[in-house]
Amino acid sequence: MTSPTRQLEGPVLIIGSGLLGASVGLGLSNLGYRVYLSDISPTTEAVAQDIGAGQSLRALAAEGKQMQEPQLVVVSSPPDVTAELVVQALADYPDAWVIDLASVKSGILADIQASGADSSRYLGTHPMAGREKSGPVAARGELFSARPWVLCPHPQVNPQLIKLASQLVVELGATVSLMEAEEHDQTVALISHVPQVMSSLLASRLQDTPLYALGLAGQGLRDTTRIAASDPGLWVQILAANAQPVVQTLYGVREDLERLIRTLEAPASPGARLDIAQLISEGNHGVARIPGKHGGAPKAFRQLTVLVDDTPGTLARLLVTIGELGVNLEDLRLEHSPGAQVGMAELSVNPNQHDKLMSDLTSLGWKVVK
Amino acid sequence: MTSPTRQLEGPVLIIGSGLLGASVGLGLSNLGYRVYLSDISPTTEAVAQDIGAGQSLRALAAEGKQMQEPQLVVVSSPPDVTAELVVQALADYPDAWVIDLASVKSGILADIQASGADSSRYLGTHPMAGREKSGPVAARGELFSARPWVLCPHPQVNPQLIKLASQLVVELGATVSLMEAEEHDQTVALISHVPQVMSSLLASRLQDTPLYALGLAGQGLRDTTRIAASDPGLWVQILAANAQPVVQTLYGVREDLERLIRTLEAPASPGARLDIAQLISEGNHGVARIPGKHGGAPKAFRQLTVLVDDTPGTLARLLVTIGELGVNLEDLRLEHSPGAQVGMAELSVNPNQHDKLMSDLTSLGWKVVK
Repeated sequence: MTSPTRQLEGPVLIIGSGLLGASVGLGLSNLGYRVYLSDISPTTEAVAQDIGAGQSLRALAAEGKQMQEPQLVVVSSPPDVTAELVVQALADYPDAWVIDLASVKSGILADIQASGADSSRYLGTHPMAGREKSGPVAARGELFSARPWVLCPHPQVNPQLIKLASQLVVELGATVSLMEAEEHDQTVALISHVPQVMSSLLASRLQDTPLYALGLAGQGLRDTTRIAASDPGLWVQILAANAQPVVQTLYGVREDLERLIRTLEAPASPGARLDIAQLISEGNHGVARIPGKHGGAPKAFRQLTVLVDDTPGTLARLLVTIGELGVNLEDLRLEHSPGAQVGMAELSVNPNQHDKLMSDLTSLGWKVVK
Repeated sequence: MTSPTRQLEGPVLIIGSGLLGASVGLGLSNLGYRVYLSDISPTTEAVAQDIGAGQSLRALAAEGKQMQEPQLVVVSSPPDVTAELVVQALADYPDAWVIDLASVKSGILADIQASGADSSRYLGTHPMAGREKSGPVAARGELFSARPWVLCPHPQVNPQLIKLASQLVVELGATVSLMEAEEHDQTVALISHVPQVMSSLLASRLQDTPLYALGLAGQGLRDTTRIAASDPGLWVQILAANAQPVVQTLYGVREDLERLIRTLEAPASPGARLDIAQLISEGNHGVARIPGKHGGAPKAFRQLTVLVDDTPGTLARLLVTIGELGVNLEDLRLEHSPGAQVGMAELSVNPNQHDKLMSDLTSLGWKVVK
């Protein structure tokens, strides 16, 4: 067996040309690599070729052409079938590296290791990009820009594959993050899967709420339920595949929830208020640990909220004004105002620029709400 | 006893000159009404006068001056002490209307009715504005712009007071919403208090998570934990005061959580996947009921995400460009990109403008990520 080369040169065979696979294909094709596409669905494969993600294997076969041996196989399939597709690819292409993109890793790794396949040529990866949509039509070559992409080395992996996969990640605009498969699964359980569960648990309470009551909803409800719009089919697979780490975290949530319920059943009893304060306070500590913009320490920016009416260009004018005042906008959120033709632009700025910006904007006629 | 007049003329006495009270004072003072301020803390009262929210009663007394009889008393205090302050005001000012601004209503109403005070001159209200900050320094006259303000008529209230309170609300820029006190409490439990609880429950799980793991966090975690930064002191009072409606909703959450935990403990068992799918699906239904922009039916806007680098003015330039392309921006969210000096601007536009905007922006050199 020829030793696989360490530099990414292509060709790359993508097995599974849905959103992620087709986006990888697009990105690599735009960079000049030769890309082949294979999908269980002929339509998905054909559409991916149409959008420029690579050459469909079915189309090649129909033209009587041969595929060149791939240097790298990228398996981009639902978690349920990923391990078997990796094992198949390791067998079909004995000179190729094989990576996968599934959002859970340790179960897949265990299945591959148990199969007896040559796992030295396999590396599990997970690009943390591209949530809500699906299918090749939604694919973008830029999907991975500035996103983290986790690589999960295991004891048998050839170090050259880690280098090659890192090169792939960087060329697609993402940043490499290294983690063991089990730690990866615990991490995504905490930062992605349990938030999904909490959002769905909350949103499902709204099913029978009268619409005029929901009309009073502010940003708090919108923020906490936004991801409740996720696709059930996808999330069934993810939660089932990552059940253990997710349920471990949910045990802790259940415990805290039980304690709060008991407290609220007797809110005047001694210690009740302290209990409630402790929950909110622990939440304060947790959320304060989430890195701020650009991954740095969470900074204490100050907010001000400006009323923007709904005419086109108003928000743009506000941002231009802020730029002309020499203030750097650290973050921006648009808030909905129920029942009125206005929005609220919540601006985050450096604390020492806050007060002057507030008074400057007010002098210029902007309504600074808070 | 002179029958209180129905038109808002002032003077208005504000009892409790923290964020809400001082903002009401500022708004009314800017509209030309005579406003008096009274707060249990001399500093809070003095600061509120300093920012222009009205005349401090202590300062008046020190100058040997008399307060004019108020037409309206606004009690703006923590829920714990609101009922007693309302009862006191009804007694001290037998010709005045009295309203309160507390975020829970039925307990306060019950206490006032039980006291034997003249509740025909009392109306419970709740301006749904001004979350995170506190204290008079943060007060803004515009705080209530385009926000809902709930009025809670009860069987004894004089209809003239409802008219007068409505006028106050409208003059301060808010929109009137009418609800019975109990329905108000159930509503805010669902759309404000339980979301706070869920966010805090989730965020408290992050306390021991390594920072490099939190570095992988995306918008999902940020959105669901944003309000976990709320003030414990305030929320202890709110949750204790609204314990019954909150705990009723939490019983439902606990039930769903239990069912999910059992399912995830045996994810391969028959019906497990259906169970999970059902939870996500119910969440879909719930979140889809939340009104869209301007309170209308949630519209199916389409999103595209554009990479914006961190140099000043880039975001403004993007918005100007979009305006020049004749596209109306329905919503805008800035997403954090961990570890890179860029941000992602998620734009919501009319579905039939989406594809052309995507290709126009790409032609103009913008990186459309998805």
